Amino acid sequence: MKCRVCKGPAVIDVRRHNANFCPEHFLKLCRDQVTRAIDQFGMLTPGERVLVAVSGGKDSLALWDLLLDLGYPTDGLYVGLGIGDYSGSSADHARGFAADRGVTLVEVDLRETHGYDIPTGAKSARRAPCSVCGISKRHVFDRAALDGGYDALATGHNLDDEAAVLFGNVLRWETDYLARQQPVLPARNGFPRKIKPLVRLGERETAAYCILAGIDYEVEECPMAGGNKHLGYKEALNAIETTSPGTKQQFYFGYLERAAARFTAGEDDTADGVDLSPCGRCGSPTPGEVCAFCRLAERAARTQPVVAPARRVAS
Amino acid sequence: MKCRVCKGPAVIDVRRHNANFCPEHFLKLCRDQVTRAIDQFGMLTPGERVLVAVSGGKDSLALWDLLLDLGYPTDGLYVGLGIGDYSGSSADHARGFAADRGVTLVEVDLRETHGYDIPTGAKSARRAPCSVCGISKRHVFDRAALDGGYDALATGHNLDDEAAVLFGNVLRWETDYLARQQPVLPARNGFPRKIKPLVRLGERETAAYCILAGIDYEVEECPMAGGNKHLGYKEALNAIETTSPGTKQQFYFGYLERAAARFTAGEDDTADGVDLSPCGRCGSPTPGEVCAFCRLAERAARTQPVVAPARRVAS
Repeated sequence: MKCRVCKGPAVIDVRRHNANFCPEHFLKLCRDQVTRAIDQFGMLTPGERVLVAVSGGKDSLALWDLLLDLGYPTDGLYVGLGIGDYSGSSADHARGFAADRGVTLVEVDLRETHGYDIPTGAKSARRAPCSVCGISKRHVFDRAALDGGYDALATGHNLDDEAAVLFGNVLRWETDYLARQQPVLPARNGFPRKIKPLVRLGERETAAYCILAGIDYEVEECPMAGGNKHLGYKEALNAIETTSPGTKQQFYFGYLERAAARFTAGEDDTADGVDLSPCGRCGSPTPGEVCAFCRLAERAARTQPVVAPARRVAS
Repeated sequence: MKCRVCKGPAVIDVRRHNANFCPEHFLKLCRDQVTRAIDQFGMLTPGERVLVAVSGGKDSLALWDLLLDLGYPTDGLYVGLGIGDYSGSSADHARGFAADRGVTLVEVDLRETHGYDIPTGAKSARRAPCSVCGISKRHVFDRAALDGGYDALATGHNLDDEAAVLFGNVLRWETDYLARQQPVLPARNGFPRKIKPLVRLGERETAAYCILAGIDYEVEECPMAGGNKHLGYKEALNAIETTSPGTKQQFYFGYLERAAARFTAGEDDTADGVDLSPCGRCGSPTPGEVCAFCRLAERAARTQPVVAPARRVAS
């Protein structure tokens, strides 16, 4: 197995590119793909300040490393979700990366700042933990990016993530979600610009990037995510990708090229085409009087704390 | 397990309807679903003459039976594909049904009429057998429906088929195919009206219908279809359907309700928006001088016949 670029010994094959790479040229491939995504979708201009949402896992740490490497002044944001040992260990990995690189990690602990954690929030709202976690993180991310005056908020969504989300949106023909499934969402109405620079890399590649770049990441999956639909969508796409490498890339980028405009046509610049006004509690844009986050947080903060499930080792 | 309708002993559960049925009310469910599809999409008006494409398998024989039962004057059309024992056995089942019911089965043998069979056609065209079979059957179906003066050509595509085709079209964002993926295509430009009255029934239900209605169908799968992408799409959707019953129905009908119009907008009434003129050989509408079927048939008829693969028992 030889590197496509230098013909030296290869350490990884990337089947959808039908190519193998040595460590040096694999790391270059990842940088090139991120540069290409940033340029292709107009995510950033040189020198812009970025806040990257960091979970301590492979995707977000690879993204932080790549953005620093490409010269963007980038701080990290870690949100303490209160999911038992998993959160403790994830935080250690995020802090370890920041200390190693001498960069700034902003930390927001949900319980300290908002009086609840994800297990308790899920119980009090009677919703799936992934749903409560999504509402919570989006709020904290948006707030931190705006308050810190960053030009963009970056998240570590990779090609596998985006393809699985697209699959779920298509299975239910969630036309509003389809209209907003873009690798970059411009700043608007009190929301920061949101970018996903890893959309050209699969999760196997972000894991390999971390290993080859010497980044120590949290390898466990969240113990509360087991059995969620998103994982089922990933498995279904993985089965097809195995026999037809490149299917996910074709699916996701084909959507952006040939279908997305059919769902955004007629959308105005408010979320879901609804008028937004500031939340009476936190000031974030919301279609109601109090935003979904503040309603969740108020209820959850009154609920007796519950204990997170035990660790779940990634398969 | 009790029948939802009469509370008598049930013999089948239909998970996406969250209900069980006795034989009598299951057969009624199937008739009701076909009636509903015909009405919902304006497929037929009472008394219209139908030609149903019959393979000898569960879907097409169930469809023929249901259309007769609903009072539509319906003839069958069997196309001899020359796929070894499989074709022989399939023909026997189609003929058996016609003899039992005292109805007319039109037969067209590809080799007798057009000088080739599917194994030879696939070899000469260097294409997948399923692709060659599709071109061949569409031509024979269209011709027979027009020549016989039928009001519509009906095919036995069920919900699982349509969901899998939709999935394949979406994975590649085949916008032309998406624009035409409808349960009814009106007659136009030398094509007959085409209808799919089984879109509200899954393949497990058409099989159960045949068993409960005493229809002896071909249970083998085509030995040349193994490993095709369509089967992979079905498996992927089946995995999701198992954990979330109703996903396929939501996917297919959600497409028709909320997304299809986004792909047909701007389409004109020619196939693919291309001007069609009569094929120089057969007169069928084609964008070129000679249609794809005649090009295939002319090349295949000059090729040394090849033998079909051995039987493949359905899993």
